[in-house]
Amino acid sequence: MSVSDPLPSWNDCNAKQSIIDFVARVSLAGSSDYVPVNERVAVFDNDGTLWCEMPVPVQAFFMSDRVKALAPQHPEWLRTEPFKSILAGDIKTALATGIKGLAELGMATHAGMTTDEFVRIVRDWLSTARHPKLNRTFTEAIYQPMLEVLALLRARGFATFIVSGGGAEFMRVFAEDVYGVPPHQVIGSTIKTHFELRAGKPVLVRDPALDFFDDKAGKPVNINKYIGRRPIACFGNSDGDSEMLMWTTLGRDDARPSLGVIVHHTDGEREFAYDREHVLSGQLDKGLSEAAKYGWVLADMKNDWRVVFPAAARSAQV
Amino acid sequence: MSVSDPLPSWNDCNAKQSIIDFVARVSLAGSSDYVPVNERVAVFDNDGTLWCEMPVPVQAFFMSDRVKALAPQHPEWLRTEPFKSILAGDIKTALATGIKGLAELGMATHAGMTTDEFVRIVRDWLSTARHPKLNRTFTEAIYQPMLEVLALLRARGFATFIVSGGGAEFMRVFAEDVYGVPPHQVIGSTIKTHFELRAGKPVLVRDPALDFFDDKAGKPVNINKYIGRRPIACFGNSDGDSEMLMWTTLGRDDARPSLGVIVHHTDGEREFAYDREHVLSGQLDKGLSEAAKYGWVLADMKNDWRVVFPAAARSAQV
Repeated sequence: MSVSDPLPSWNDCNAKQSIIDFVARVSLAGSSDYVPVNERVAVFDNDGTLWCEMPVPVQAFFMSDRVKALAPQHPEWLRTEPFKSILAGDIKTALATGIKGLAELGMATHAGMTTDEFVRIVRDWLSTARHPKLNRTFTEAIYQPMLEVLALLRARGFATFIVSGGGAEFMRVFAEDVYGVPPHQVIGSTIKTHFELRAGKPVLVRDPALDFFDDKAGKPVNINKYIGRRPIACFGNSDGDSEMLMWTTLGRDDARPSLGVIVHHTDGEREFAYDREHVLSGQLDKGLSEAAKYGWVLADMKNDWRVVFPAAARSAQV
Repeated sequence: MSVSDPLPSWNDCNAKQSIIDFVARVSLAGSSDYVPVNERVAVFDNDGTLWCEMPVPVQAFFMSDRVKALAPQHPEWLRTEPFKSILAGDIKTALATGIKGLAELGMATHAGMTTDEFVRIVRDWLSTARHPKLNRTFTEAIYQPMLEVLALLRARGFATFIVSGGGAEFMRVFAEDVYGVPPHQVIGSTIKTHFELRAGKPVLVRDPALDFFDDKAGKPVNINKYIGRRPIACFGNSDGDSEMLMWTTLGRDDARPSLGVIVHHTDGEREFAYDREHVLSGQLDKGLSEAAKYGWVLADMKNDWRVVFPAAARSAQV
């Protein structure tokens, strides 16, 4: 490994070379594929692309712990799904109640407080909660190879954005410290809020109503709404990222070069192995076919990543 | 005027000194009011704060010209308000039909095309349309003193955002060239869009439905949603900016210093003079009282601005 290798946690592979080549092509003056710096926009899914989303997405663990903390004020939850399953320790059954159940869990745990109070609740939780299998906190269950991709892109003038189905205000609590992505570059699902003066002090209150679900065809919609510029690089891992990969790579009138990358979860030993059959969240089915059709690059976690998580990366480098 | 004066188009006045002092306080290492660079967020209204909004906001001129261009396909508009007044050259009567009429005009002129097509329509219009009284294009009817404030803030590490009742996708066409504000830092009103594949090519289509009206109490809501961080400086000019001025300056748990500035349109000779009695758009009534109560700084255009528009600034410097 060369000391000047910008992606040291990646083995030599097609994905690594494709990323390095693309970044060079668009950022080297004189390159026929040169892209002005203000147009160098890269978007990243979060769950399963930047951090671990198994056995359930991190925000589901947060919802579960919040339901348990709030349960004494809601005796009816012991008799009502999806709360009943959560309180019995069965998150997967609770999530299997579908969109309606998920929305109920989301509103019961994410609404009814000010935006400042919500930040404090999430921050406190993240500081102590641990992944059930990986023996680390959730913000340590992030992918070292992807941190290196973020750093490489930023070193070459890219603005890096997160575009995730997860909650924007949940992710913003840690995204700047953990990924180097500032709050205004974190796009995600949102609930409605309203402005109030409480004894002369302005607050924003989180209301129990979905504002926008940032997944699938909603991702390019939000990219346009928040970024206002078409990305030239897009990183995802599931069928929920398909439309934003299309929006980045297909049929561009501006003839800009583009790169689409899919993180393929092939490593059941160091992380989790799942794709076509995993329907609860993070399913990668049509995306595997589209990758071949559209030239999206597959990053094979088992074969392409020398290390997966930062701690392992650190010990490997010692 | 010193060559190192960061605000040369401002006369010596309280507003100029307040802005310069605030920027120094928050950005000089060792200052007791020092604010880390990633928290230096400044928000600016657009209509009446960065460019001229009289006799009607620029986007109303755009709507009017679009109605005229599209009228041959809509013979019924000759008999129906608010289109009938527009076609008779009377924008003010059309706007006086209220929110419902404005929404009809907006949807008839801003929806039904792809996002790319809309950008081309706006760009073409801006390149030729001229202000009816100021003898210049609309993107030349911007305030030179405010361009200097934007530049000063950015030189001291601030991220500068626009937060306007105007259309986000309308403003993004010119905001980067004219104000140096990139598309992802332009927040405004939005209409709904949806993603489509047309013969394998992805497009976003602008639908005739309001997504969010970014005015009054909607401004702090959108600041939280898009920026995810409380600004420390806010510049407005009308009662529509009151809530975002409050959100910036009042009752902060983080004890950050803050600055609120209101551009007061006092100059009927060089621009337009209006405040409490001007109800069509840009009314400044309760804001004048709030400014005194909350310590917001009034920038008096007539007395505080040496020049108003860039061309005058250039000739004055020659």
